Amino acid sequence: MTIEEAKQALQQLQVQMYAYRYALGQISLDAATVGPKDTVEGRGVALSVLAGAMYDMAMKPETIELLEYLKAHKDELNELEAKEVEELLRDHEETSKIPKDEYLAYRQLLNEADAVWHQAKADDDFAAFLPVLEKIVDFNRKMAGYIHPEKKPYDALLDRYERGLTMEKADAFFAQVRAHIVPLLAKIQAAPQVDDSFLKQIFPVEKQRVLSDRLMEMQTIDRGHCAIGETEHPFTSGFNHADVRITTHYYEDNFSDSMYSVIHEGGHALYELGIDPALDYTVLSGGVSMGIHESQSRLFENIIGRSRGYVKNLLPVLQEIFPEQMEGVTAEALYKALNKVEPSLIRTKADELTYSLHIMVRYEIEKRLIDGTLECKDVPAEWNRLYKEYLGVDVPNDRDGCLQDTHWGGGMIGYFPSYALGSAYGAQMVEKMKEDIDYEACLDACDLKPIVAWLGEKIHKYGSSKDPAWILANCLQADFDPSYYTRYLEAKYSDIYGL
Amino acid sequence: MTIEEAKQALQQLQVQMYAYRYALGQISLDAATVGPKDTVEGRGVALSVLAGAMYDMAMKPETIELLEYLKAHKDELNELEAKEVEELLRDHEETSKIPKDEYLAYRQLLNEADAVWHQAKADDDFAAFLPVLEKIVDFNRKMAGYIHPEKKPYDALLDRYERGLTMEKADAFFAQVRAHIVPLLAKIQAAPQVDDSFLKQIFPVEKQRVLSDRLMEMQTIDRGHCAIGETEHPFTSGFNHADVRITTHYYEDNFSDSMYSVIHEGGHALYELGIDPALDYTVLSGGVSMGIHESQSRLFENIIGRSRGYVKNLLPVLQEIFPEQMEGVTAEALYKALNKVEPSLIRTKADELTYSLHIMVRYEIEKRLIDGTLECKDVPAEWNRLYKEYLGVDVPNDRDGCLQDTHWGGGMIGYFPSYALGSAYGAQMVEKMKEDIDYEACLDACDLKPIVAWLGEKIHKYGSSKDPAWILANCLQADFDPSYYTRYLEAKYSDIYGL
Repeated sequence: MTIEEAKQALQQLQVQMYAYRYALGQISLDAATVGPKDTVEGRGVALSVLAGAMYDMAMKPETIELLEYLKAHKDELNELEAKEVEELLRDHEETSKIPKDEYLAYRQLLNEADAVWHQAKADDDFAAFLPVLEKIVDFNRKMAGYIHPEKKPYDALLDRYERGLTMEKADAFFAQVRAHIVPLLAKIQAAPQVDDSFLKQIFPVEKQRVLSDRLMEMQTIDRGHCAIGETEHPFTSGFNHADVRITTHYYEDNFSDSMYSVIHEGGHALYELGIDPALDYTVLSGGVSMGIHESQSRLFENIIGRSRGYVKNLLPVLQEIFPEQMEGVTAEALYKALNKVEPSLIRTKADELTYSLHIMVRYEIEKRLIDGTLECKDVPAEWNRLYKEYLGVDVPNDRDGCLQDTHWGGGMIGYFPSYALGSAYGAQMVEKMKEDIDYEACLDACDLKPIVAWLGEKIHKYGSSKDPAWILANCLQADFDPSYYTRYLEAKYSDIYGL
Repeated sequence: MTIEEAKQALQQLQVQMYAYRYALGQISLDAATVGPKDTVEGRGVALSVLAGAMYDMAMKPETIELLEYLKAHKDELNELEAKEVEELLRDHEETSKIPKDEYLAYRQLLNEADAVWHQAKADDDFAAFLPVLEKIVDFNRKMAGYIHPEKKPYDALLDRYERGLTMEKADAFFAQVRAHIVPLLAKIQAAPQVDDSFLKQIFPVEKQRVLSDRLMEMQTIDRGHCAIGETEHPFTSGFNHADVRITTHYYEDNFSDSMYSVIHEGGHALYELGIDPALDYTVLSGGVSMGIHESQSRLFENIIGRSRGYVKNLLPVLQEIFPEQMEGVTAEALYKALNKVEPSLIRTKADELTYSLHIMVRYEIEKRLIDGTLECKDVPAEWNRLYKEYLGVDVPNDRDGCLQDTHWGGGMIGYFPSYALGSAYGAQMVEKMKEDIDYEACLDACDLKPIVAWLGEKIHKYGSSKDPAWILANCLQADFDPSYYTRYLEAKYSDIYGL
């Protein structure tokens, strides 16, 4: 094998892998959006064959030989090729530590788990979800041990979603956030409350769909490359830099929920759409980590989407689509209403300030599920206890409690902390951005192009071709410092609540 | 290899094939429904890898060895296994006659052709579609020669969609239909016309979506296993007996177009949903031929869906959903309006009577494209000439002319005749059905269950486990006789037009 042949084989391998990822992604997207309810079995049969083929492709001796050959000829590779080989070898090494039968059984389990979770949530029946959750937790704990026997299991899982993240770092981060949010929240709860009653009217779903189109337009999303679907739990699915899908969930009596879901997923979509096309069909395509991804989504959702400037531009759009409901509403009233702080039950409906407390509940529970100090059967009680402790709210049922999120049923344990971390990254990014562009003027004119371009240049274009720590440092030109985030929150909410 | 091992390998091979068909079907469904416009490239890369993997699986030496071994041990196979081996060997033999590079290039071409056709139709620009059409016709002609060098090329293509169909049979069939429809049409055009002006009002798309749900309910379609999407050109996609999708296209100013699309595709869906679950994940799953499939769809669309009994039950549903538009409309007025005969431009909007004439235009053109007596560039002129000759209408542009259908851009040459043939099968099936169930009473009570059950028992359950000729003979207990169809049309339209 010559080095040129090996390089070609490397590209071919990655194109093959892309095709299976694409197929699996399409099947999952269909299942979550338009796929009929009772179609799990046939989907599972297909998924298990395709995942098996993908596994075989990654694990066959020719693949590892090729990668080892390329690694040995590292000097003859360009930077991208070297990174591709490194990532493929890492994946190979990690996967080879998990017994194949366990891996495939787990994939099959996840396919079934989604439907079980949906049904359990609909029926408010945690007992129905429990056996699946136990298997998922069990597999994740075992997987962590297989992959990183030297690490604490939960550290190994955190690392999967945000390379380099540890419980030590997460604990410190959450401690800092808690130290600022809890007193701030107390002051806000003692202050006069803002009026958001006009948001609680009925907003017909059909018109909310029109609003979604307008929001995506405001966010400069090219619809030729990005579609929106409807799912129980909103998400973004990126197939390549030119094909990204977002989803939302409409509630007739809570239009702002979907509105901010769309802007949030739109942030994810802009990231995926901004990745260098040269990375398509390689393992370096796609966003680099959940933390960086959430920094983009939550930056658009909150720091931009709930800013005075953006909301001022949102008002005429809302008044055009919902003239009756929005009659007489001023920009300032809308700004305050959309930023109302109210400890509540549902993470995705949480205000910007209390959101991190919702994450902390999940972080604490995950940590203890994986280290074995909490049993799955005790999750509802522990969930409810922590919601009372952190947010002061009573959880009336599991549907609005520990069954609300798709993550655990989807096998994602270790993902949640990245939401809070991403928010904090975003706050620091904006401060850095202000050195280069007139950020406030962009919001004031609702011209998000310069913001998207700045993020594209500093973050998006790199895809997964650099480690998350490199991308963050490249963007911030400084160490990550969560005090940007807490200062931002303190300034914003002191103003809104006149503290 | 023992026979038991070989049987297991046979099932495993078919499960693998199913998974790739499932993935390709999902990707195509996405492309036609919700996939954004400018996502062709990335989809093409994935499709080409997956189609290549499928090809390799079918063509690798182990596969042919397995099939030959099983064929040699035919006596030890049950009936289904024997048929599976027969079909797999046939496919293998056919595919092995097509050079792999041509086969894969053609798959890639089809992926691109769909977008080209969509754009060309939107722009009314036949010249943009021409190069793609030429390549498709050229490949189909060559493929016919590869697969059946002993047959006339168009006969080989007809056989792909309806095994055993030849130009000789099709010519005879169309001659019989023409001999009855043309004089009947002349009499109708000389008679006083029916009033369908109330159908031409505006029917909001959102309410048409509600109607689709009601229609599927009336048709006894289980929505847990069947979803409806929206596409340029309606179609049905069956993944397995428990997962079927139909699509429609809504026009605000022509609600009955989508209404009958839904009932038509619903007929296809009932066929797929009625197949014996034991055939899932084998090559014997799915409907057996286009002719049998169209017999089901057109039976529901026209013979049932445009019957006096069904329309009587449709009226209150329409009046509930569209109270203003349907105010004061009587069942008899609706029945006549929905059966108005009017030679027109668009096949899918054609009335039941003139529909076959639209098919004849396509049949004549396809036949001549493949035998080389017509060049692709001359299709528009020939199309327009034949529409004038058969239907008496002037074609104002190619969008409403030769660019209207998805079939040729999708590579389907030889498919169209099955629509007309299916209509004729359906008419004879209903006459046979009347011996066993009170068909008119079912329509009168809008209780389609006995009809679906009868068709399920005679046709649906067999999937592709029998040849279409066997299934037709089993259902009819007689030779196919197109005079059932022409008698049905003559009786129906003589009554409506008082001839």
